[in-house]
Amino acid sequence: MKQISVNLNKNYDIFLGAGILAERLLNIDFLEATKVMVVTDATVYKLYYEEVLAVLKKRKVKVFCHAVKGGEQSKSLKDYSRLLNTLAKHEFTRKDLIIALGGGVVGDLAGFTAGTFLRGINYIQCPTTLLSMVDSSVGGKTGINLTKGKNLVGVFKQPLAVIADARLLSTLTQSEFKNGMGEVVKYEILFGGGFKREDLENPSENMLEEIIEFSINCKKKIVEKDEHESGERKLLNLGHTFAHAIEKIFNFSVPHGFAVIAGIKYILEVSKRLNVLKSGEEEKILNLLKASHDKLDYLNSTPPKTVLNAIKSDKKSARGKITLVLIEEIGKCKLHDISFKELGDLLPWIQK
Amino acid sequence: MKQISVNLNKNYDIFLGAGILAERLLNIDFLEATKVMVVTDATVYKLYYEEVLAVLKKRKVKVFCHAVKGGEQSKSLKDYSRLLNTLAKHEFTRKDLIIALGGGVVGDLAGFTAGTFLRGINYIQCPTTLLSMVDSSVGGKTGINLTKGKNLVGVFKQPLAVIADARLLSTLTQSEFKNGMGEVVKYEILFGGGFKREDLENPSENMLEEIIEFSINCKKKIVEKDEHESGERKLLNLGHTFAHAIEKIFNFSVPHGFAVIAGIKYILEVSKRLNVLKSGEEEKILNLLKASHDKLDYLNSTPPKTVLNAIKSDKKSARGKITLVLIEEIGKCKLHDISFKELGDLLPWIQK
Repeated sequence: MKQISVNLNKNYDIFLGAGILAERLLNIDFLEATKVMVVTDATVYKLYYEEVLAVLKKRKVKVFCHAVKGGEQSKSLKDYSRLLNTLAKHEFTRKDLIIALGGGVVGDLAGFTAGTFLRGINYIQCPTTLLSMVDSSVGGKTGINLTKGKNLVGVFKQPLAVIADARLLSTLTQSEFKNGMGEVVKYEILFGGGFKREDLENPSENMLEEIIEFSINCKKKIVEKDEHESGERKLLNLGHTFAHAIEKIFNFSVPHGFAVIAGIKYILEVSKRLNVLKSGEEEKILNLLKASHDKLDYLNSTPPKTVLNAIKSDKKSARGKITLVLIEEIGKCKLHDISFKELGDLLPWIQK
Repeated sequence: MKQISVNLNKNYDIFLGAGILAERLLNIDFLEATKVMVVTDATVYKLYYEEVLAVLKKRKVKVFCHAVKGGEQSKSLKDYSRLLNTLAKHEFTRKDLIIALGGGVVGDLAGFTAGTFLRGINYIQCPTTLLSMVDSSVGGKTGINLTKGKNLVGVFKQPLAVIADARLLSTLTQSEFKNGMGEVVKYEILFGGGFKREDLENPSENMLEEIIEFSINCKKKIVEKDEHESGERKLLNLGHTFAHAIEKIFNFSVPHGFAVIAGIKYILEVSKRLNVLKSGEEEKILNLLKASHDKLDYLNSTPPKTVLNAIKSDKKSARGKITLVLIEEIGKCKLHDISFKELGDLLPWIQK
């Protein structure tokens, strides 16, 4: 088992390994908790809840379970209200604990709830997807969606601990797995870990742990420097400007990782047009992207104006401009402020 | 005008004086905001919104208004959702600003929204009641209610600035004014400012500013030492254990300040029974309490078991016990952990 210590306003450990879930749930310090609320979704509930419950029953805590339907629609104000009321009904106190057992949706909903119920109670994240292991287990971003857009409401909330059990990934569908690999490819482009397309396409068990560790360490390094996303952390938004536009335009039917991969392809093109991309990099990067997903042209029948409007409504936009993450080469990206006007002038090539 | 600087994880200023609202709204730095959402309630809207709008129109910002009905029922998940959706509809960004123009309800709702919309945007508090000037303008506590209890959801969120214009207090009803005075009496008992019953009962304009300044400084001192309520800040809960029980039992129909005053009376009795209260203090303290409110025996027809159950559901209770704030003498109070069992044994005198 690997242990990665994250040092933010509150320190916590990420435990990484295959088959570590039961042992960790049994031995992690629950501090003064006497009640535990396992938040999960319908799919994960069927696969892993019984096992988790059996372990927790060995500890001196009362265990409750709150399962949401799953998918982006579960990151709603309605689901948030329901979870809050469930905690209140069972008289959870500030010492009690939430365990998020699931992917990004469950982690975000449970984390936001943990960050706001009684002005903050502890929570432990047990990510069950590759995407949530590499993406949401570091950084403390939590959130829910409004009708107007994704993650428009949330807080920064650090967990008490993260248990990333790679064994749980074996039950992911191929598509869910590839979706998570989208974020891994993003880290490879940002920081250059030397992973090749074939490493990412069909990783062995060992390679998979290596990939997850690399991704977590990349994110950790950057988030520790910039917890509240004022500067460098914005690099992590590589591909996200167009990804959010794709998600919005397709009404959140495109999985996040695939949207990011396509988003990187679009920002690659913007980087080229702004003369930032080094020659010879385009082919290498397009090849890497395909380790996650083949479809890179989601927007080719969308009018550029629609794309621009979707980008404008991104919560990172302000005062008529947005910060893009441009690619120079693998391992070297940079922030670039651009006005909507200028960006709009760059977009006509999108529609084919 | 007085300027009190509060030094927490984020520093901000409280401006205090009579008739300062317009000048301050005109000159306070709005940073990069291009949009302002004034959150208020129906009563304050009628009294002051026109005036506020006229000032804000002189600045280069787009002004929006969101008025809630008012009263505790406006601190609901429904009102929170509505306000979030209004901000999203008008495409507020992270640089934009909320102005809370109203009492504690408006401040708590607007503050919680500012603390969570886009994971946090700026807000300025313009308290319009005595209670919100002395209580909620320092400390950053924000929150909304659930059916199960008050303030069960919230975050710590410091404002950009507080404008406490004592002129606005002239439109308060006698009862609202006395309600705020309940918190002032609490500060006098906690810290001993030397104020007499007659100072608090009918304060002159100068005395009123002095009282507000004293109260703000008391709270500031304690909150700066203990921002997240792990230790000393608990002193501010003087009277609150029974106050919350009274509010709950009377279904939130008793104004908070009056509940606190009655709560102090009950804790005075507990302090006496635990041999903590110095002799000769009881009369002085009961006399001070009457500067705010005559009715001190809300619970005398409530079974002690009902009182204890209401106390148990307080969010500050944990593991079968609660921390009480006991009174030794005016200017000297102390924390005291007590089990529900022991507290229950102390309560039979309540019912008369």
